[in-house]
Amino acid sequence: MAPAPEAGGVFALMNVVGLVAFAMVGSLKAADADLDLFGVAVLGVLTALGGGTVRDVLVGRVPGALRSTGDVAVALLGVALAVLLARRVRGRLLDHPLLLAPDAVGLAAFAATGALVGHEAGLSPFGVVALATLTAVGGGSLADVLLSRVPVVLREEFYATPAVLGGALFWLAESVGVDPSAAALGCAGLVLGVRLLALRRGWDLPSP
Amino acid sequence: MAPAPEAGGVFALMNVVGLVAFAMVGSLKAADADLDLFGVAVLGVLTALGGGTVRDVLVGRVPGALRSTGDVAVALLGVALAVLLARRVRGRLLDHPLLLAPDAVGLAAFAATGALVGHEAGLSPFGVVALATLTAVGGGSLADVLLSRVPVVLREEFYATPAVLGGALFWLAESVGVDPSAAALGCAGLVLGVRLLALRRGWDLPSP
Amino acid sequence: MAPAPEAGGVFALMNVVGLVAFAMVGSLKAADADLDLFGVAVLGVLTALGGGTVRDVLVGRVPGALRSTGDVAVALLGVALAVLLARRVRGRLLDHPLLLAPDAVGLAAFAATGALVGHEAGLSPFGVVALATLTAVGGGSLADVLLSRVPVVLREEFYATPAVLGGALFWLAESVGVDPSAAALGCAGLVLGVRLLALRRGWDLPSP
Repeated sequence: MAPAPEAGGVFALMNVVGLVAFAMVGSLKAADADLDLFGVAVLGVLTALGGGTVRDVLVGRVPGALRSTGDVAVALLGVALAVLLARRVRGRLLDHPLLLAPDAVGLAAFAATGALVGHEAGLSPFGVVALATLTAVGGGSLADVLLSRVPVVLREEFYATPAVLGGALFWLAESVGVDPSAAALGCAGLVLGVRLLALRRGWDLPSP
Repeated sequence: MAPAPEAGGVFALMNVVGLVAFAMVGSLKAADADLDLFGVAVLGVLTALGGGTVRDVLVGRVPGALRSTGDVAVALLGVALAVLLARRVRGRLLDHPLLLAPDAVGLAAFAATGALVGHEAGLSPFGVVALATLTAVGGGSLADVLLSRVPVVLREEFYATPAVLGGALFWLAESVGVDPSAAALGCAGLVLGVRLLALRRGWDLPSP
Repeated sequence: MAPAPEAGGVFALMNVVGLVAFAMVGSLKAADADLDLFGVAVLGVLTALGGGTVRDVLVGRVPGALRSTGDVAVALLGVALAVLLARRVRGRLLDHPLLLAPDAVGLAAFAATGALVGHEAGLSPFGVVALATLTAVGGGSLADVLLSRVPVVLREEFYATPAVLGGALFWLAESVGVDPSAAALGCAGLVLGVRLLALRRGWDLPSP
């Protein structure tokens, strides 16, 4: 899930923050579910790298996460942090602002790279929005599936919706001639803003 | 899941009927499981487009569903119908002939396009049958997995078997020199006939 | 999951043993879960061929299992054996040394082919280890997901760890100049040895 080169330093930083936060979330969920050490590491790494891997497979690329060692090293740092903290804090950390804020940063960075990759691959507007969303929430959803749970993004919380909105903004901006890397920054900003607002206000989508 | 050009208008119509029916089935299942609106839309779209997406990824194509907007628009029509009906009818609609019949049409159309794509990609006889079956039942099975259920096609009902038989017929016909688009029509006809017969007679496969 | 040509006859034999054993394990699990005959066949074939299919998709190849008929024929032999034995022995066979030993042979063969394919695709050290592990445990994990269970390799048992160690040995050996097919043999030997030792001693990974 390396940031696109043109997106520059801000993205690189957001990406690292997101990889660590996503890996911590995945590992803490795994520890809560009594997985063994291998399972905790797999769920952490999968939560961090899974969305980008699905994104790359869908557009016919060999996943970046398997071609580099940097991303997995950052993810393993998150796993290690989670293992160190797991005994002491467990589930309580999963809802803590100290984890939710960097997780929102990751959501924003991953949605933006997903939209960029979809754009580069020549996808349709739907494809761009789907790829932004899948990149952002795919890793956590795969982890939920492995834990034999309905992915939380399908049930409650205003978590995937910011990514959908961000992907739509990217496509709109790009289709009126905005430069893709500027569009990606706008996408990331919108996702981050909407997600933080949703957390603060406790937003939820209704059931039909 | 666009129909192969050579398969013509009948396929295009069957495909649209199938996309709407599959999306309705997925969304109604999601509403029954108390997912939120995003989850209901995702399950509907995934049930309609998931089988064709898996098919395309397996043969190394960027999924058609991500490159067009037509298929997802048709699927979202099915989602909207399901949401409008969900409050009133819920689970009862899932077993209603008005939904089961177009669902069987979709099963037939998707199995036929799966067999065609497998043939074009140079797969083995097993590969053609597997791709026909996966295209037909893959979307619904992915939706079941996201709902944390054992896919219904693995447990009961004569639902995947017609697709297997249709894929085998396609391969047999094509290997004795029948034109692929004629073989695809024969495949679709067999799947539709066997599935409707199974529904009428209440067929089930035995457990070993 | 055809063996790499350079790996020769030993690998071909290990591969066949593994395909039969993996298919039996998958089918017996499915029969225990009361799936119907289609489900039992799907779970058996998926357990045998799923890891190699995920491996091929990740490196951008059309899955070998869909391009040949040999692998699926061998897997279906395992399914048939399991169906014949299912009534009589059920779950007891799943823990029997007569099945665990050939299953360990398959684990070793699949980890080695996964490492080789990852090496040929130019993956990073992490990618090679991940592909070795996914090829070895991916099929069984997909089967567990379809059965709506947390994959057993994430919860307990010293099953994935030997594949991780084997992948790491392959990478180490290859990076100091050892010929890839020799490295693959070393990988397979290590996986088999560690797995059999773990079975004999009842090893488990701790939970964090």
